[in-house]
Amino acid sequence: MSPSLGRSLLHPRSVALIGASDDATKTGGRPLAYLRRAGFSGVVYPVNPRRATVQGLRAYPSLSALPEVPDHAFILTPTEGALEAVAACAARGVPLATVLAGGFAEEGEAGRAREAELRRILAGGPTRLLGPNSIGIVNVATGLSLTANGAFAEPEIRRGSVFVASHSGSMIGAILSRGLAKGLGFAGFVSTGSEVDLSLGEICAATLDDPAIEAYALFLETITHGADIRRFAVAAAARGKPVIAYKLGRSAQGAELSQSHTGAIAGEDGIADAFLRDCGIARVETLEGLIEGIPLVRRVGVPERPLRPKVAVVTTTGGGAAMVVDQLGLRGIEAAVPSEATMARLNERGVVAPRGRILDLTLAGTRPAVMSAALDTLLAAPEFDLVVAVAGSSARFQPDLLVPAITAAATAAARPLVAFAAPDAPQALAHLAEAGIPSFRTPEACGDAIAAVFGRRPAKALPPQAGQASGEPRLLDEAAGYAVLARLGLPVAAHAVVEAGATASPIGYPVAVKLLSAEVLHKTELGGVALGIRDDGAFRDAAAGIAGRVSRARPGLAVERLLVQAMASGLGEVLLSVHRDAEAGLVVMLAAGGILAEIHQDRSLRLGPVDRREAVAMIDEVKALRALAGYRGRERGDLDALADAIVALSACGPEIVEAEINPLVVRRKGEGVVAVDAVVRVREDTRIGDPMTGETP
Amino acid sequence: MSPSLGRSLLHPRSVALIGASDDATKTGGRPLAYLRRAGFSGVVYPVNPRRATVQGLRAYPSLSALPEVPDHAFILTPTEGALEAVAACAARGVPLATVLAGGFAEEGEAGRAREAELRRILAGGPTRLLGPNSIGIVNVATGLSLTANGAFAEPEIRRGSVFVASHSGSMIGAILSRGLAKGLGFAGFVSTGSEVDLSLGEICAATLDDPAIEAYALFLETITHGADIRRFAVAAAARGKPVIAYKLGRSAQGAELSQSHTGAIAGEDGIADAFLRDCGIARVETLEGLIEGIPLVRRVGVPERPLRPKVAVVTTTGGGAAMVVDQLGLRGIEAAVPSEATMARLNERGVVAPRGRILDLTLAGTRPAVMSAALDTLLAAPEFDLVVAVAGSSARFQPDLLVPAITAAATAAARPLVAFAAPDAPQALAHLAEAGIPSFRTPEACGDAIAAVFGRRPAKALPPQAGQASGEPRLLDEAAGYAVLARLGLPVAAHAVVEAGATASPIGYPVAVKLLSAEVLHKTELGGVALGIRDDGAFRDAAAGIAGRVSRARPGLAVERLLVQAMASGLGEVLLSVHRDAEAGLVVMLAAGGILAEIHQDRSLRLGPVDRREAVAMIDEVKALRALAGYRGRERGDLDALADAIVALSACGPEIVEAEINPLVVRRKGEGVVAVDAVVRVREDTRIGDPMTGETP
Repeated sequence: MSPSLGRSLLHPRSVALIGASDDATKTGGRPLAYLRRAGFSGVVYPVNPRRATVQGLRAYPSLSALPEVPDHAFILTPTEGALEAVAACAARGVPLATVLAGGFAEEGEAGRAREAELRRILAGGPTRLLGPNSIGIVNVATGLSLTANGAFAEPEIRRGSVFVASHSGSMIGAILSRGLAKGLGFAGFVSTGSEVDLSLGEICAATLDDPAIEAYALFLETITHGADIRRFAVAAAARGKPVIAYKLGRSAQGAELSQSHTGAIAGEDGIADAFLRDCGIARVETLEGLIEGIPLVRRVGVPERPLRPKVAVVTTTGGGAAMVVDQLGLRGIEAAVPSEATMARLNERGVVAPRGRILDLTLAGTRPAVMSAALDTLLAAPEFDLVVAVAGSSARFQPDLLVPAITAAATAAARPLVAFAAPDAPQALAHLAEAGIPSFRTPEACGDAIAAVFGRRPAKALPPQAGQASGEPRLLDEAAGYAVLARLGLPVAAHAVVEAGATASPIGYPVAVKLLSAEVLHKTELGGVALGIRDDGAFRDAAAGIAGRVSRARPGLAVERLLVQAMASGLGEVLLSVHRDAEAGLVVMLAAGGILAEIHQDRSLRLGPVDRREAVAMIDEVKALRALAGYRGRERGDLDALADAIVALSACGPEIVEAEINPLVVRRKGEGVVAVDAVVRVREDTRIGDPMTGETP
Repeated sequence: MSPSLGRSLLHPRSVALIGASDDATKTGGRPLAYLRRAGFSGVVYPVNPRRATVQGLRAYPSLSALPEVPDHAFILTPTEGALEAVAACAARGVPLATVLAGGFAEEGEAGRAREAELRRILAGGPTRLLGPNSIGIVNVATGLSLTANGAFAEPEIRRGSVFVASHSGSMIGAILSRGLAKGLGFAGFVSTGSEVDLSLGEICAATLDDPAIEAYALFLETITHGADIRRFAVAAAARGKPVIAYKLGRSAQGAELSQSHTGAIAGEDGIADAFLRDCGIARVETLEGLIEGIPLVRRVGVPERPLRPKVAVVTTTGGGAAMVVDQLGLRGIEAAVPSEATMARLNERGVVAPRGRILDLTLAGTRPAVMSAALDTLLAAPEFDLVVAVAGSSARFQPDLLVPAITAAATAAARPLVAFAAPDAPQALAHLAEAGIPSFRTPEACGDAIAAVFGRRPAKALPPQAGQASGEPRLLDEAAGYAVLARLGLPVAAHAVVEAGATASPIGYPVAVKLLSAEVLHKTELGGVALGIRDDGAFRDAAAGIAGRVSRARPGLAVERLLVQAMASGLGEVLLSVHRDAEAGLVVMLAAGGILAEIHQDRSLRLGPVDRREAVAMIDEVKALRALAGYRGRERGDLDALADAIVALSACGPEIVEAEINPLVVRRKGEGVVAVDAVVRVREDTRIGDPMTGETP
C-alpha cells in the first residue's frame, strides 16, 4: 500500500542488475536484453566486478560504486552470492531488492539457515525483498521487463490492463503465451517466489493505485500470507478491480507438492475455497478458465451481491450448445428457458426456434442478421444474467460475419455476452478477445469461468480485531468449555459439577455422568462416560465404575470431579467447530454427525464470522441435513436454531483457539439445539481489547 | 457386419445425390462440390427434375432414370420430399440411402407419424437407411466426401486411421477442425442422425474390416441401441482397434437435452458409464480429451487387463508439472516417485534432481540431452506404466530441439510417452502429433485422457442369452420372490407362510409378521408389518393389527396370508438390486442402506453378469461400506458373502425383470448376509432356453 513500494515495483527510475551477464542468452543476461528491447526509459546499472562493460553498457564493480541509490536491485547471482548482495542493498539503502536464486527454505537445513540469515539482514532495514526464487517483475506500459524469464523472448507483448501475480515463475510464461494467443493484453507480471519478505498480497496491494491496472489474475500454489491477500482483495474490490485466481492442490497428491515446493504450509483445499470466496476472488478450476476468464471477470466487474445466475444459450450447433449446458449443469448453473414474452419478441424479429434451454437457430437460418436479432433480444430479456453464443462452422469459416454480429450485440447490451466456438476458430476468438468479449475454446473452460465469476460474493474485510491473545493454547475441562460456549450464546445441556464421591445427581434424572478433567481429551476411550443414569443407585455405580476404569486405563490420573449432565435427544446430531488456520483465519465447520458423514466428507466450511444468511447456506451444503429439512416428509429439525448456533460460535473472540461441539443435538423445529459434548481450547494470556478500535488496554 | 453394407458406406462405386443443388454454397449443393474437390473416383448421379445439369454435371429427373442402381443415395430434399425419395430407393433396390432432413421423431406428433411411415417403407425391403438427420459420411482415403457439412470446406483433410462416428452432425466439424489443428489425420466420419434404421454401433461394425481404420472416436449424445454398440466394441477389441468416446449428459440439465434432441431415451449417466466400461471404451469427460486422447488410445491399444497405472512426471517447469499431478490425483491416478534404483540410473546419466512425484530437471539443466537421458531412463523403469513430459518455454521457443528429443525417446520405448506443454505451443504439439506422440494443450485434457485410456477394462461380450422372456412383468409376493432369490443362491431370512387366522409362529420367535400379497408393493405404508414379535400373544396381536390397519388403509384388499420371518440383525444393511435397462441391459446396483446413502447417491453400478473381482470393486466403490471394512478399528462385516450375493443376483436369467433386496443385512465376518425384504418382478411367459446355444426349446 506504500506509494514508494508501488513506485519501486512498477515505476523505478533506476534499476541495478547485480551479477548481470554479458551473454544475453544466459539467465543472468536476459534482464538487460529484455529491458532494452522493451524500451525501458529509466537508468540501468549492470553490476559485475569481472567486466568493464556488460552487453555494451558500462558495468560497475559493486553496488557502492553506483552514482546513485537505485530504486530496485535485481540480484542475479547464484544462491551463494545472493545474501551478500542483499546485505549490500540494505547497507546502501536500496528500497527494493529482488533475488532470483532459489536454495532457501525449500532446500533443507542449509536452505533454512540461509533464509534465517536473509531475514536477519532485512530486519529493521530500509530494503524490502521480492523473492528469493523470484524470476522478476514486468510493467508492460513502461518497458520494465525486469525479468530473467525466457518467456519474455516474445516478439511483442500486447499492452492491457491485467496484472498477473504468480507464486510460480515458470507459470508466468504459460499465462503470457496463452493470453497472447487468445488476444489478451497485460499490464504486468510478478513472480513472487518464496515470499520471505514481500508477499503476493502485499505486492498486489502496492500496485492498486496504478491506473493502468484494472484487474488481477493470480496463480497460487497454496494460500500463503492469507491476511495480506485478503487486505489486497478487499482494497481491490473497493476500487472496482476484480480478481481471478487458479490455485493448485485440489487433490491430495497436488496439495502435497505445494507444501514442499516453496516451503509453504498448504492449507486444506476446502479452507482455501472458503478463503477465496470470502475475498471475493473468482476461483477457476482449469488453466484455460484462468486465461479465458480474465475478459469475463473484467466485463462483469466486482460483485455487489451473491447471485444465482440464469444463462441464455443461443446457437447454430446443437451439439456444441449441449456441451455448454452440460458443463453449466455440472457446476449448478441454470441454462434457463426463455420466458413466453421473450419467445414472442424473438418471433417478432423473425427468430423462429423451439422453446427450450437452448435457442437453436438452425431452422431460423444461420445468417448474421438472425444471430444479431436473437442476441439483442436475449440480452434485453430480464430473466437472464448472461448470454452465451455458441458458434459452429461460421466461427471458423466466416469470422468476418460472426465477430461483428457478436461485437455489436455485446457493445449495445447492459448484460454480458460471451462466446464459445465449437470448431477450432483461433481467429474469431482472438478478434472477440481484442474487442473485450469473453470467448472460450472449450465447453469446460466456458462453464468453469462462468461458475467462478458468477459464483463470487462481495469481498469481506476481516472485522476489527477485538483484542489479541498470546500464550500457549490450553485445554479447558468440559464444564469450563460449556461456560465459554454459553457466554457466546450457545445452548448447552443442563449440567452440574460434583466431587468424585457424590452419591446422587443434583439435577435429577436421567443424566450422563462423565469424567471431568482438563487433562483428558478422549474421556470415552478411558471408560470415563456413563449414559442414561436413571436413579441414585445407578449414579453411584456409574461414579464408581468411572473411577475404576479411568484409574486402570491411566494410573497416574486422579478422578476428582465428575460432570453430571441432563440426557438430551433430538432428530439428529451435527458437529460444529471453529479453529484458527495460520493463513485463512478462523475456520468454521459444520458437519453431519456420525461415521458416514466422516466417510463422505459431508461438511461445509466458512471463515468466521459468519452471518445468518451464510449460516443457512452452510446448512444447505451439508447433504445429510436434508434429512432434517423435511426430506420425503420427515419431521423437520430446528435448523433455525442451528443457524443461530453457527453465527454465535463463529463470532468467538481471539481467546478461543479451537472449539468443537460434537455432538450438537438438533431437536424438533421450535425446540432448539443443544451442545452435549465439547472440547474448547483457549490461550492463557488473553487480553480483550476495545472492539471498536482493536486496541488492547 | 455385412460386407455389402461396409462397401455401400465407405466404398460405393456410385452415388446418387437426390435433390442436388446447382449452387455449391447451398447445403444441397455441397456434397457434389466436396466429392469433386476430394477427387472421388466413383460415379456421381445428381437427381434434380428441375434442371438438365447440376454444377455442370448431367442431372437426372428421377432415381428410376439412372442408368444403374447406385450403391448409395444421399437424399438432400427437405423433410416433405424425403419419404418419397426413400420409397423410390426401396423400389429401385438401392442398398443404402442417407436422409439429410430432420423433422422426424424429434418433432412432435407429425414427426412421429413421419418416422412410422419411414419404418413402414423400409420394412422388409432391400434399402438400409442412414439417418434421418444425418449430415452424411466421409471416407478420406477414397475422396468420398458425401456430406452436406460445411466443415468439409477445409482446404485439406489429413488422412489418418481414426474413424469418427457422431450422433450430432455439427460436432463432426468441431472434431475435424480441432483434430486438424492438433496435427491429427482421419480415416473418415459419419453422422448417424436419428438412427431410425442403422445405428451408430451397426455402422461402426460395418466398417471394422476396412484396413485403413485402426481406431474409433465416438461423440454420443446418449446411449442408443446399446446392444449394437457393445457388439461393435467387442468386435473392435478382437481386431485390436481401440475406441474412445465423449458422451453428453453428465449433468441432469445436459441429460435432459439429449432426451429431447433426437427423440432418444436417455439412460442415467451412471449406467452409461458402466456400459461404456463393459464395452472397453475409453470415456473422456472433456472435449479436448476426446481429440487429444485419440493418439493416446492408439498408442496404448486395446487393454488386456485392468490396470492401476503409475505415472512418471518429468519437467522443466515445476508449476506446469504440478498442475498435471493435481489433475491426475483428482482422477485417482498416481504420479509415482521413482524407485531408488531408477534415481541411481538417472544420476549415472547425469540427471541430478530431487526425488519426488515430479522429476524436475530445472537444476540439471534444460538441455535436450538431459531431457533425453531422463526420458530414456524413466521409460525403461519397471515401476511406471506411462511417462508424462511437461515442457516449459522450450516447447514454444525451441520446438526443433524439444520435439526430436521426445520423439526419439518415444520411438525407442516399449511404454507410452506423452507430452503436455505449459505455454501456448501449437507448433510443438502438432509436430508431436504428426509423429504419433500423444500431446496435450491443457493439464485437464491430459489428466482426462490418461484416466480414460488407462481406466479401461477389456471389452466384455454379453453372455449367450439363456432363453427369452415375454409377456407383461408381474410382481411376485415376498415368499415367491424369496424362492426366486434362493434358487439363485442368495441367502434369505428363514420364513413361513401362514393363513391370516394363524395364532402362533411356526418358526419360533422372535419374528417379523408381514402382509403377504402380490398386489402390494409398499406394505409398510399400509401398516402391513410388525417387527420383533416375541411370543404367541404378541403374534396374535400383530396378525390382528395388520388385518385391521390394512383393511382400513385399503378397503378392497383382503388380508389372506401372512409372511412370518425370523428377525435378523447385523453390522449394516445394503440395497442390492438388478433391473433391465432398454439400452444397456441388466443393471446391477449396490447401495448403502438408509436415507443418508440415498442423499449421497452412495452406490455402485455395473452391468450383469458381474464376476467376483468386479463385485469386490463394487463394494469398494460404495463409500459407506468402508464402515464395514475395518474403518477405524470397527468390526468387519462379511463383505466376502456380500460379493457372493452380488455375483449370484447378477447372474439372474431373462425371466427376472427387476429384483430389489432392501435391506440385505450384512453380518459379522464369517456369518454371511441375509435378505430380509425383497421385491421381485418376473415376466409371465418365460421360456428358459439352453444356456449353451441360447435356443429356446
